[in-house]
Amino acid sequence: METFFRYNWIVREQWYAWCEDIPLEELLRPRTGGVGSILQTFFHVIDVEWSWLQLLQGKPDDPEDFEDYKTLEAVRQYDRKLRPDVEAFVVAWDPSMEKKAYIHPESKDKVAQESWGEVMRHVIAHEIHHMGQMSVWAREVGKKPVSANVIGKGLIIPD
Amino acid sequence: METFFRYNWIVREQWYAWCEDIPLEELLRPRTGGVGSILQTFFHVIDVEWSWLQLLQGKPDDPEDFEDYKTLEAVRQYDRKLRPDVEAFVVAWDPSMEKKAYIHPESKDKVAQESWGEVMRHVIAHEIHHMGQMSVWAREVGKKPVSANVIGKGLIIPD
Repeated sequence: METFFRYNWIVREQWYAWCEDIPLEELLRPRTGGVGSILQTFFHVIDVEWSWLQLLQGKPDDPEDFEDYKTLEAVRQYDRKLRPDVEAFVVAWDPSMEKKAYIHPESKDKVAQESWGEVMRHVIAHEIHHMGQMSVWAREVGKKPVSANVIGKGLIIPD
Repeated sequence: METFFRYNWIVREQWYAWCEDIPLEELLRPRTGGVGSILQTFFHVIDVEWSWLQLLQGKPDDPEDFEDYKTLEAVRQYDRKLRPDVEAFVVAWDPSMEKKAYIHPESKDKVAQESWGEVMRHVIAHEIHHMGQMSVWAREVGKKPVSANVIGKGLIIPD
């Protein structure tokens, strides 16, 4: 599980570096598909990752507003602020949590439909999916997208 | 590992169903980013998934040509043809394979840089990434994309 989170964080940092050469106007320009703009996509990915893990832990998930994070540096700071919580949970992940039931706090009377293992994979796939959208927008901007390769990042050193 | 492959296969089937309402011309139209068109993306995803797993097993990876698969039905048949090989390998996956070294057949003298665990995650992320691109193209076609949600698919039933 941790490998995929680390992959996502590496790719996300590479996209931030990619953004450094792009005018803010382009980063905020409305795009077809996804959540609307390049910067808002990062904000959304960071927010969703943190929120789901907070929910699993029964911790508060206070929503933030993208209106307050409309620069590259603000988005990066938001990421730096939330990452320690996310990383602590991911590092402490144990396969015994896979089938733990996720009960949404507002529907405690209902039967749980989701397992923690599904939620974790949902968070992982969510970011990869949005980076796929980003790769199309990168071409629209006229710039080569960040590679989505898992291989070549030294994530699991072979024996 | 199997959960993510099953997720990808479910989503892929949903995208095939989505394509049924789209004229072939739209499915073959060149698009910004990715490998060029909607149908070619499916062909590429199927091909890459199978090829990597063949390579891991030291089996032949005979390339096919998209020119021979330029209808939705042909792509689906290609998928049906290769799936049994892929599924057999995925179902037999064992965590002890995670750090097994992948040595590319054409560079046996070099030190292996990749592990089997990385290659498997590469295949998983590869498809999710391309479906992210597809979701942008879906909006261009004027149709709601297939959901990328991992939750809600009954992949891991909670205890």
